[in-house]
Amino acid sequence: NPMECFETSFSILAFGEVVSTADLTTGVKMGVVCWLFGGAVVNLGSPEHIEKWVQPIKDLKFTGMFAMTECGHGSNVKGIQTQATYDPATKEFVIHTPCEDAKKMYIGNAMQGNYAAVFAQLYVNGEWQGPHCFIVPIRDQAGKVYPGVTAVDMRHKEGLNGVDNGILFFDSVRIPKENLLNKFGSVSQHGVYESPIKDKTARFNAMLAALTPTRIALVFQAVAAMKLGLTIAIRYSYSRRQFGPKNKEEVKIIEHQTQYLRLMPHLATSLALTFTSRYAGEILDEDVCQGKDLVNNRPLQALVAGLKAYSTWENVGCLQDCRECTGGMGYMMENRIPDLKCDSDVFVTFEGDNVVMLQVVARDLLAQYARQYEERPVLELLKHWTASTADSLRTSFLAFNTEVVGCLSFLLKALNFRERVLQRSLSARLYDKVKKKKEEFFSAWNSCLHHVVALALAHVHRVTLEQFWKAVKECPEPKDQALLKKVRNQALSRLFAFALQFLELCKSAKEDALTVVSAFNIPASSVQAPIAGNPSPTATWTFYPHPPDSPGAKANFQAKL
Amino acid sequence: NPMECFETSFSILAFGEVVSTADLTTGVKMGVVCWLFGGAVVNLGSPEHIEKWVQPIKDLKFTGMFAMTECGHGSNVKGIQTQATYDPATKEFVIHTPCEDAKKMYIGNAMQGNYAAVFAQLYVNGEWQGPHCFIVPIRDQAGKVYPGVTAVDMRHKEGLNGVDNGILFFDSVRIPKENLLNKFGSVSQHGVYESPIKDKTARFNAMLAALTPTRIALVFQAVAAMKLGLTIAIRYSYSRRQFGPKNKEEVKIIEHQTQYLRLMPHLATSLALTFTSRYAGEILDEDVCQGKDLVNNRPLQALVAGLKAYSTWENVGCLQDCRECTGGMGYMMENRIPDLKCDSDVFVTFEGDNVVMLQVVARDLLAQYARQYEERPVLELLKHWTASTADSLRTSFLAFNTEVVGCLSFLLKALNFRERVLQRSLSARLYDKVKKKKEEFFSAWNSCLHHVVALALAHVHRVTLEQFWKAVKECPEPKDQALLKKVRNQALSRLFAFALQFLELCKSAKEDALTVVSAFNIPASSVQAPIAGNPSPTATWTFYPHPPDSPGAKANFQAKL
Repeated sequence: NPMECFETSFSILAFGEVVSTADLTTGVKMGVVCWLFGGAVVNLGSPEHIEKWVQPIKDLKFTGMFAMTECGHGSNVKGIQTQATYDPATKEFVIHTPCEDAKKMYIGNAMQGNYAAVFAQLYVNGEWQGPHCFIVPIRDQAGKVYPGVTAVDMRHKEGLNGVDNGILFFDSVRIPKENLLNKFGSVSQHGVYESPIKDKTARFNAMLAALTPTRIALVFQAVAAMKLGLTIAIRYSYSRRQFGPKNKEEVKIIEHQTQYLRLMPHLATSLALTFTSRYAGEILDEDVCQGKDLVNNRPLQALVAGLKAYSTWENVGCLQDCRECTGGMGYMMENRIPDLKCDSDVFVTFEGDNVVMLQVVARDLLAQYARQYEERPVLELLKHWTASTADSLRTSFLAFNTEVVGCLSFLLKALNFRERVLQRSLSARLYDKVKKKKEEFFSAWNSCLHHVVALALAHVHRVTLEQFWKAVKECPEPKDQALLKKVRNQALSRLFAFALQFLELCKSAKEDALTVVSAFNIPASSVQAPIAGNPSPTATWTFYPHPPDSPGAKANFQAKL
Repeated sequence: NPMECFETSFSILAFGEVVSTADLTTGVKMGVVCWLFGGAVVNLGSPEHIEKWVQPIKDLKFTGMFAMTECGHGSNVKGIQTQATYDPATKEFVIHTPCEDAKKMYIGNAMQGNYAAVFAQLYVNGEWQGPHCFIVPIRDQAGKVYPGVTAVDMRHKEGLNGVDNGILFFDSVRIPKENLLNKFGSVSQHGVYESPIKDKTARFNAMLAALTPTRIALVFQAVAAMKLGLTIAIRYSYSRRQFGPKNKEEVKIIEHQTQYLRLMPHLATSLALTFTSRYAGEILDEDVCQGKDLVNNRPLQALVAGLKAYSTWENVGCLQDCRECTGGMGYMMENRIPDLKCDSDVFVTFEGDNVVMLQVVARDLLAQYARQYEERPVLELLKHWTASTADSLRTSFLAFNTEVVGCLSFLLKALNFRERVLQRSLSARLYDKVKKKKEEFFSAWNSCLHHVVALALAHVHRVTLEQFWKAVKECPEPKDQALLKKVRNQALSRLFAFALQFLELCKSAKEDALTVVSAFNIPASSVQAPIAGNPSPTATWTFYPHPPDSPGAKANFQAKL
């Protein structure tokens, strides 16, 4: 039972990765019940709430769902329209869907779950208090839907068809006062609204912080999908032969330059993301398990939002290349890649659209920047822009050559420099538009959105590379360290567009590709793909035997990953 | 009946585009029967063959299939292992599958078709004559499979599940001598092999030229999928609102900078590809309908191979962005985008893997280059490399600024220059490796594959831009011409990475996006997506009314597209 280890986020994250390689639908459904419903209760509720709604999930007594998104408001969650009106006479909340746009949509487990964590605008004594989260009973243990609740199946999607996404709406459903998850806002015995956070926006942001663990879980799932796709594509590339020198045996398709140029960068990224998602998981572990409120760790929220966007986009690109690099075989269902693609395609959208996630990152980076110069006059800020200490790097760029790529500390500085430049210039542009030209903030921000996205990605790239660097540095086995270094340098050379070195490094990384995918240690029962060496009785023709690994390297490397 | 218009390729290409917007599976199955089977008979057979096997298809009396790809040989068709041995005693060919690898795979219509155009290595009097194409009866009108033939269903794929792809293999199946499609090779009355082309490779290449029309048809289908995806995504972007200025109505999502930056370039590409695929279709029309052999039009073969790769990759990228830009709605089956994605994903693989297609382009460009200098000594070639007249453009680059983008003739020259540089440098590299360093050709070519792909894409980009340019120039309506020019300039500015101008041009192109998609003129019954204004009784919640077009512009523009 996954909930058993809820106390240590890290083990459940790893568990989620393992489950997802076996079946993404199961991974996502587990995410809905444990991370979204369970996480809402844990992060927004009281110890009594946890006792009442998390313990039974651990005991598999019932399942939950998470009802935030509405028909009219997905990304802009603040605008949701479901109402929760406090009735002082009965000490109940009345949960109500006032219009079509307020219907809860895409709700996972909607056709089977017993309880929903429903986000609704709270009204107490006629006063609006912003969105809050309520536990609403949806159906009894026998599966009978409660009066006033309607659940509609949304049926077929591109993938994840094992998840029952549905529409939920409420016709004045009454729930007891205790069903409000009350960490950031509650109604007193005397019917008065109370909250430790006065500002409505800040209060809602605190609640949204509850989504952070779910987003890390999603990063682990995206990485799982990448690793599985790469395992299948790389093993097949080492089995399948096509074309070759005149009058000689055809070569393995991994030998075609275009093949390794397409697959090796994804392999490097999957390693970098493995290390970085663990890093985020460890911070989460420290925070959550030491009882800290997630809301206070803004950099973690920003990192996770950025990682969510970066990893899910990388996953889409990776699986597309895996599909194309395995040709017709990769189009056949029995080889897993189509399902992986279709199931994980929505990762870029759910748990926060990627473009919105990157704006979360940029907003935090700008806030950090502003804090840095809070006490200085505005002119200082602009002066700094033209004469930062970091700018001294600029001159070094002139002497930049390909050999320097090996010098990692220089490159990390360069990535850091890029991030700072984007941060300062975005800050200056927004300052100019909003403060000087009095432009409306939304339109000023929107006209810089391209810049915002670039800054956020630069940040995630920098952190990801740092974690890759750290993993290489701390690797205890010299042999494994050398291998990791090679893959990392290849990732780097792409980042800096050194075409020639990139070609050479990809070619060299290819030699270790089987060792790396073996070290992912995905059990054959999860790999399942006939083209990767797992026979299928219903598609015997797609079987290609498992290409031989170099066993020594494997055993060692496995320990690290 | 699509075969009715086989005489004018252009109308059947347009028909294929229309059918594909309604249902890609139907489009692909039509492609198998008409273009692949029908095309093989028309291009490789005699008038008697056409009478016998094309006329009945026109009359819907039976259907055909195209059996080229084998388990062991897909891209490397020359290596197929199915055997066709001539038996002089009975004047028959014996079609035989000697091993697992020789089984015909992914054959469309395999579970229903009556005849197959089977490629097999021909042996006459014990002598091997290379691959030839034979008509093999597979099952009778009642659907009963003939003795010696086995057809196995390959079942589930990522998409196109309406197409029955299967495995075909033959246990010494005897077919009459007349069933050899004999344009490029035949067996005489006296049992002697005869061919107008002596070299086996040249002969096989002539046969492969028969695939050219099918590939153009596929380009039309890819463009159809792009246009439909864009129609749905752009209309939704003009209906759906999310986020906005404080205390004001939320804005249409098309107003978000990232949204139009993602969609507008695809819209420009879909227009450019519309014009270019028509151009290729017109050349084909002239060639085929005037009885010319396709084999002699190498530039057309190369153009079509390149367009196949370029358009199908653009389609994959376009539909992915359409999916992401429509959020959760774009993940729902009823909104068509998931199906379009999954059905067309294999376009990059079938009819020739894209990476292989680009090598066809590069090979032709190198051959052209070699012919150009055939009579000059080799040193001339290298001299030319350093002092070409085209190189005079280099100095102009120094004075290159963003305003120049408007000056199209200069830009076309620049694209042409890029192509020539890549052509000459690839030629020089290969010359150095093969002639000077005596490297094996396969390995030399493989070590330049990245360069090969870059050259091929540069070629396709140049031709595509020329056709866009021509379409703008010849547009009779000044208003439409202005619109086309705007979209074209946006495409250009991306090509040249003028970030700022690109942002502005995308923003401006967005204003006309609804007009352009209306001009695609896809009937509502083909669009079908509720988010694009076509209600669905089974998913009422995804309905967004059709955003209003500007009718004047539409009516005009429609005429052109």
